[in-house]
Amino acid sequence: MKNQRIIPIRKNFRRFLSLPMALLPVLMLASCTANQEEDTKPNIVVIFCDDLGYGDLGTFGHPTIRTPNLDQMAEEGQKWTNFYVGASVCTPSRAALITGRLPIRNGMNGNRRVLFPNSIGGLQDSEITIAEAVKEVGYATACVGKWHLGHLPEYLPTNHGFDSYFGIPYSNDMDRVKGDLKDPEYLSFNVPLMRNEEIIERPAVQTTITKRYTEESIQFIKENKDQAFFLYLAHNLPHIPLFTSEEFVDTSIRGLYGDVIEEIDWSVGQIIKTLRSEGLAENTMVVFTSDNGPWLVFEQDGGSAGLLRDGKGTTWEGGMREPTIFWWPEKIQPGVITDMGATMDIFPTVCKLTGAEFPSDRIMDGVDLTQTLLDEKPSPRNTIFYYRGREIYAVRSGMYKAHFITENVYTKDHIRTEHETPLLFHLGHDPSEKYNIAEDHPDVIAEIMIVMEQHKAKLVIPDSQLDRKK
Amino acid sequence: MKNQRIIPIRKNFRRFLSLPMALLPVLMLASCTANQEEDTKPNIVVIFCDDLGYGDLGTFGHPTIRTPNLDQMAEEGQKWTNFYVGASVCTPSRAALITGRLPIRNGMNGNRRVLFPNSIGGLQDSEITIAEAVKEVGYATACVGKWHLGHLPEYLPTNHGFDSYFGIPYSNDMDRVKGDLKDPEYLSFNVPLMRNEEIIERPAVQTTITKRYTEESIQFIKENKDQAFFLYLAHNLPHIPLFTSEEFVDTSIRGLYGDVIEEIDWSVGQIIKTLRSEGLAENTMVVFTSDNGPWLVFEQDGGSAGLLRDGKGTTWEGGMREPTIFWWPEKIQPGVITDMGATMDIFPTVCKLTGAEFPSDRIMDGVDLTQTLLDEKPSPRNTIFYYRGREIYAVRSGMYKAHFITENVYTKDHIRTEHETPLLFHLGHDPSEKYNIAEDHPDVIAEIMIVMEQHKAKLVIPDSQLDRKK
Repeated sequence: MKNQRIIPIRKNFRRFLSLPMALLPVLMLASCTANQEEDTKPNIVVIFCDDLGYGDLGTFGHPTIRTPNLDQMAEEGQKWTNFYVGASVCTPSRAALITGRLPIRNGMNGNRRVLFPNSIGGLQDSEITIAEAVKEVGYATACVGKWHLGHLPEYLPTNHGFDSYFGIPYSNDMDRVKGDLKDPEYLSFNVPLMRNEEIIERPAVQTTITKRYTEESIQFIKENKDQAFFLYLAHNLPHIPLFTSEEFVDTSIRGLYGDVIEEIDWSVGQIIKTLRSEGLAENTMVVFTSDNGPWLVFEQDGGSAGLLRDGKGTTWEGGMREPTIFWWPEKIQPGVITDMGATMDIFPTVCKLTGAEFPSDRIMDGVDLTQTLLDEKPSPRNTIFYYRGREIYAVRSGMYKAHFITENVYTKDHIRTEHETPLLFHLGHDPSEKYNIAEDHPDVIAEIMIVMEQHKAKLVIPDSQLDRKK
Repeated sequence: MKNQRIIPIRKNFRRFLSLPMALLPVLMLASCTANQEEDTKPNIVVIFCDDLGYGDLGTFGHPTIRTPNLDQMAEEGQKWTNFYVGASVCTPSRAALITGRLPIRNGMNGNRRVLFPNSIGGLQDSEITIAEAVKEVGYATACVGKWHLGHLPEYLPTNHGFDSYFGIPYSNDMDRVKGDLKDPEYLSFNVPLMRNEEIIERPAVQTTITKRYTEESIQFIKENKDQAFFLYLAHNLPHIPLFTSEEFVDTSIRGLYGDVIEEIDWSVGQIIKTLRSEGLAENTMVVFTSDNGPWLVFEQDGGSAGLLRDGKGTTWEGGMREPTIFWWPEKIQPGVITDMGATMDIFPTVCKLTGAEFPSDRIMDGVDLTQTLLDEKPSPRNTIFYYRGREIYAVRSGMYKAHFITENVYTKDHIRTEHETPLLFHLGHDPSEKYNIAEDHPDVIAEIMIVMEQHKAKLVIPDSQLDRKK
């Protein structure tokens, strides 16, 4: 399947059934080969967590959270250690994944960092989503889990290319009724659970929510096993407040946060097991990542960015680099990828793999990663823009990252600093961003500034959707 | 090989050769089975690094240091995430590994933290080493690499149970002739290279030293393939000053420190490859770990403890918890072990596996880990004493760790603090030791103090060997 071009003609299953039985073994072999190499579009499963830290999985170095399913997925697939999100908070990060574009291009960032229950904005109809793109080439599509790109009907997944939706429309700590964020009692959060465009449960019972997302996903996979599908499973955990189903209470030596991650790991195992048992594993790419780094202010209820600096809400590495795994048996070359990738790259990569049309009428920020996934070639991505709200705080170009603005967020000593001379770090030598080397490399800073200015020159910035409220 | 008792009778190879050829296939099978399950003692290889951080391997979460051989070893074997050393600096840590005892019991710690070229002390003849124990049951033994348990003839490996020795007697930054620690020019360090008790090169050419240790180790394995052997390969890197052989210059995107780790990873790969090609893999246990955490004051020339706090010289987790892997195909149950273990446990574990006698005339601090390695049972270790010099700074009992004294070392603002109320951390919930929970758990502190007092009551403390100098 190297250098594949997917031919958009699907096997005619009925015609196959009408053939003489004696020919079946030979034909099954032929069909199977054709199926794998020419005719069958691969299924795509994107598993997206919420506030998962870079260091929270076993294979990414956590000593006490046990993630055997994700560890195995990483061994069998590609573990990406320099994989980024489009923003360090929820809404803009999800917009980047779903549209393959920086949120600055479509109004999905603002002074308000995310969408709230009183927001009236959301992802515009003019945007093209991954789901819409693959739907055009015959994919069944489902969104399961947290959406957070607008809760009003016109913004919901079913109006953005998904055949079905089952999940919560924004964060699990919203619609607060009583108590504070540290109160684990779920009635404090009156967040609704929706099926398509209807609220079916309110408040969403969060203790069983990971399990129900998993069951919904498995059902979707089984129902669509004879048809190409795209599943977007966006867990609303480990975002606080933390919940697990009964089977995972007090199972992790990391405490409640560990219980939650271990239930997500179980869920990943169930998805993989289903793909295998349905004979779909060799024709399905699974991507696992998260929307942004750990929410450190919640202390032991928040995750860990491992050796990366800081977490959610910031433009330090801990805020925007996520533990990422690509899995596709016999197609993706197993290994550790230290090249750069980003959630925005999933869109063009999926287009390449599925034969879907990659939008050409607008600036897209994603790059196709198939050459790295399938052919062991370098990643074509060389740059990351670290936005906070509508401003660029930092730019990575190759191994160097320049911080123009830094801000410590969610803390009492909230300070925003504009750096006259940017801070400069070599992320290869110094992944923890400890040693500012700006003084020694004015040339590098100058080059990064050119990269930034070129980016800015092409920006057409629409109004913020996030700042619109009742 | 579960619950094995090794029978100390070795196959008679000459008798085997004199049998009629027709019987060979049957006998080879029988012999092979007997070989594996009854008659053959397993070979033991202990690979010990110097100043390697908990977070410096791919499988322990480093994003840019590539360690494919160690990652694979961890996948095939057991990755221990709560594995400790006997002290957070070189000499006492090595004494603990080699004797299975806390250094406080044999004078291998002191006000001077390690042995220096002007020291006249060392590991006493009255101590029993792993090498001596396995030698008694017929093992060939070799020490390759850094010793640092005394450089005077009576203290050298060849007088402590090793048939041969090839390496440097103390740290690679000692015998400084000119320049400072940050000078990578190797002539600054007039450290000798020894074979057995003779100096064969001075200064030791450090650029090729990892390669030469590897070649020496491979030669030892090949020469002893028909005979049980114990190899102690103690790399003197990544202790500063850092060196690599030509092939590894500028190969790592982590820079020089990464080059060094990647050469050690290559070395591990060569050892494993040799064991496989010589048909010894299924009969050899390989242990990989290090003497203490990263020397953080050397910034990018030092390693990373990942999400663990602080590094070398301290009694925080980053100083004394090391990335540890046990490998033994078809014997050791693959998995991640979050239970506690310690380098001191290697001695009793090796005794159990080899049939060697475990010293019973003295207090030993190691516990036998074979039930965890071979039978998936919990580790019998429940306690860690964190000594700095001759004082207990901290004690871990189960998940709780109490700090009685803390000290930030190797820094300008060197401060030693005796805590009237100990600091208390839950290392499961809070592996980074961020959230002191002493106030809520006076009962836990009281219990830990009992554990410490019981330990102290049995101590008979000899004079320090480290404080003896010319």
